[in-house]
Amino acid sequence: MSEPAQRRARVTGTVRVVGSGLLGASVGLGLRGRGVDVVVTDASRTAAQLAVEYGAGRAPGPDDAPALIVVAVPPDATASVVAAELAAFPQATVTDVASVKSAPLAELAASAADLGRYVGSHPLAGRERGGPISARADLFIGRPWVVTAGDGVAPERVALVEALALDLGAIPVDMDAADHDAAVAVVSHTPQLVSTLMARRLGDAADAALGLAGGGVRDVTRVAASDPALWVQILAANASVIAPVLRAYRDDLSDVIDALERIDESGSRRVLAETLAGGNAGVARLPGKHGQDRRFASVVVLIDDRPGQLGRLFAELGELGINIEDVRLEHSPGAQIGIVELAVLPEALQRAVDDLTARGWRIAG
Amino acid sequence: MSEPAQRRARVTGTVRVVGSGLLGASVGLGLRGRGVDVVVTDASRTAAQLAVEYGAGRAPGPDDAPALIVVAVPPDATASVVAAELAAFPQATVTDVASVKSAPLAELAASAADLGRYVGSHPLAGRERGGPISARADLFIGRPWVVTAGDGVAPERVALVEALALDLGAIPVDMDAADHDAAVAVVSHTPQLVSTLMARRLGDAADAALGLAGGGVRDVTRVAASDPALWVQILAANASVIAPVLRAYRDDLSDVIDALERIDESGSRRVLAETLAGGNAGVARLPGKHGQDRRFASVVVLIDDRPGQLGRLFAELGELGINIEDVRLEHSPGAQIGIVELAVLPEALQRAVDDLTARGWRIAG
Repeated sequence: MSEPAQRRARVTGTVRVVGSGLLGASVGLGLRGRGVDVVVTDASRTAAQLAVEYGAGRAPGPDDAPALIVVAVPPDATASVVAAELAAFPQATVTDVASVKSAPLAELAASAADLGRYVGSHPLAGRERGGPISARADLFIGRPWVVTAGDGVAPERVALVEALALDLGAIPVDMDAADHDAAVAVVSHTPQLVSTLMARRLGDAADAALGLAGGGVRDVTRVAASDPALWVQILAANASVIAPVLRAYRDDLSDVIDALERIDESGSRRVLAETLAGGNAGVARLPGKHGQDRRFASVVVLIDDRPGQLGRLFAELGELGINIEDVRLEHSPGAQIGIVELAVLPEALQRAVDDLTARGWRIAG
Repeated sequence: MSEPAQRRARVTGTVRVVGSGLLGASVGLGLRGRGVDVVVTDASRTAAQLAVEYGAGRAPGPDDAPALIVVAVPPDATASVVAAELAAFPQATVTDVASVKSAPLAELAASAADLGRYVGSHPLAGRERGGPISARADLFIGRPWVVTAGDGVAPERVALVEALALDLGAIPVDMDAADHDAAVAVVSHTPQLVSTLMARRLGDAADAALGLAGGGVRDVTRVAASDPALWVQILAANASVIAPVLRAYRDDLSDVIDALERIDESGSRRVLAETLAGGNAGVARLPGKHGQDRRFASVVVLIDDRPGQLGRLFAELGELGINIEDVRLEHSPGAQIGIVELAVLPEALQRAVDDLTARGWRIAG
């Protein structure tokens, strides 16, 4: 497979990455892949060494003069590390990648730090698994990277952080810190808690009940597997913004509970219907994978669950010139059969079905 | 691709399916695929005709003498239709596929129906999209099919409903109606409401906030797209069982809100940490796709987003003899790059990575 042509990096000089967890190591890997000189450091010498061995950068030297410093430490430590880096490198632009923006900014504003060189940012990327072992040079590709520039910051410093995002394949999004925090309270922090609280209910369930679990409850509870230590910091740092969203959620929940408790009274079913319709409307607002209004057609293929079957299937789709927009593979517990649901462009649907059927594939529906 | 050998159906004689929505039409398609004589009917003549045209069965005749009747109508109508079928066919065993079991049973017990021929059941299968157009002969393959036999029912009638489940590739699970309803309250009805209520919060969010949405909130809110008309009936029929689960959920939620509102007081962060850890423990209890304790290793491959790339990738994995346990395809909005995350057996991981790398694939990490 041919490597896409490597464009030259926008950032120049040395980039210093402080913190070698998932995000820091991924920044390092991505920049190094574009030929940038990256220094990586960490409060833990072992972690820093590991990141160097993974190729995320080199160890710091006495003459480093980074133009850009990326602080990628847990939210609680962000402000103090940013302040220390601003002080240690009096020419450098310093950014951070913490998933909350107002709290570190307020802490910095209360310090003696030179805020004219600080540009907060937050790449909306991550995985359930953390640590440098999970780092990927492509972690940020196509993801939004929020840049929260303060008023007193020179435009060229903001541009440098945007260049970092672009070099890593991300899409810079200009937002102020408060808007950012309000946004992630709704699209990230509340979903995390909603999922966590649902998963807690599973803790009390009978084994037989869990045996009936299907795709719905799995989807709802997937992010409940996230790291508690990190999430306590995130939630605490954005507590005052999340709380009102959760209170509104609880109000709706109480309406549903009241309706269920009086299900035979007039109006109760209407409350449920309106709540469910409101959910339909809310989820429809999420931008689609390929833009808001694009819809794909679905082809469901039943395959034997053994090596090579998927290869044959996708090879034949390739011969047909049909691109797969999305794929979902479903195993049937207890059966040696796999169900492959393919999303294709609507205009390719009939051809895909006809030709796959002609070649002996089992198309469902 | 070779068709798996078609075994003879366990059920014999005519099966009458009442209700030609997703479940009824899928039952008909599945049984017809095994050579069973299926009659399909529906309160809507158009719907019945559509199901016949889709191949789910034939129209009823004056001399039909079904041994088994499958009632696949909405929950609210289930008991009255079951009673009517018991009366109209005095020899037949009647089952239903409603996703609640106690409420129809109580309604039937209060009627003059011959409960000695009724065996309630519930296949844990479904899709977000309903209707006969979404019907699939393979809808039930590998899924649990709960059978709730009453005390006064002859064993051969219970066996007939289990045979139906087996003929459709499902796994019969013996449970009483109350246990079933308690189970689905936790693993299906509560997740539905939790997801719906989260999606409602998105209704108030700014467009810019929704632009930051990632995989987490999408997963949590996916089932919020489900049909309100159907779900009002399901929730209403199981209201008294769902309500206590939601109250426990609300108690936990209130603890979280209290902690967030007093985040700087002693103990608040501990409440958050324990809640998050409880979520970890709960989600870990969900049986894995291949059984509780099996873990897979993950390989992430970066591909060009064009036809044939997936085919080449899976073909090469097939040549290596490596089975793909799960696959997740992620498109990068705005980038012509796809990220393919493959789950493989741990012992196959190193070989997969080495060989794919040697062939020029871009492996992340």
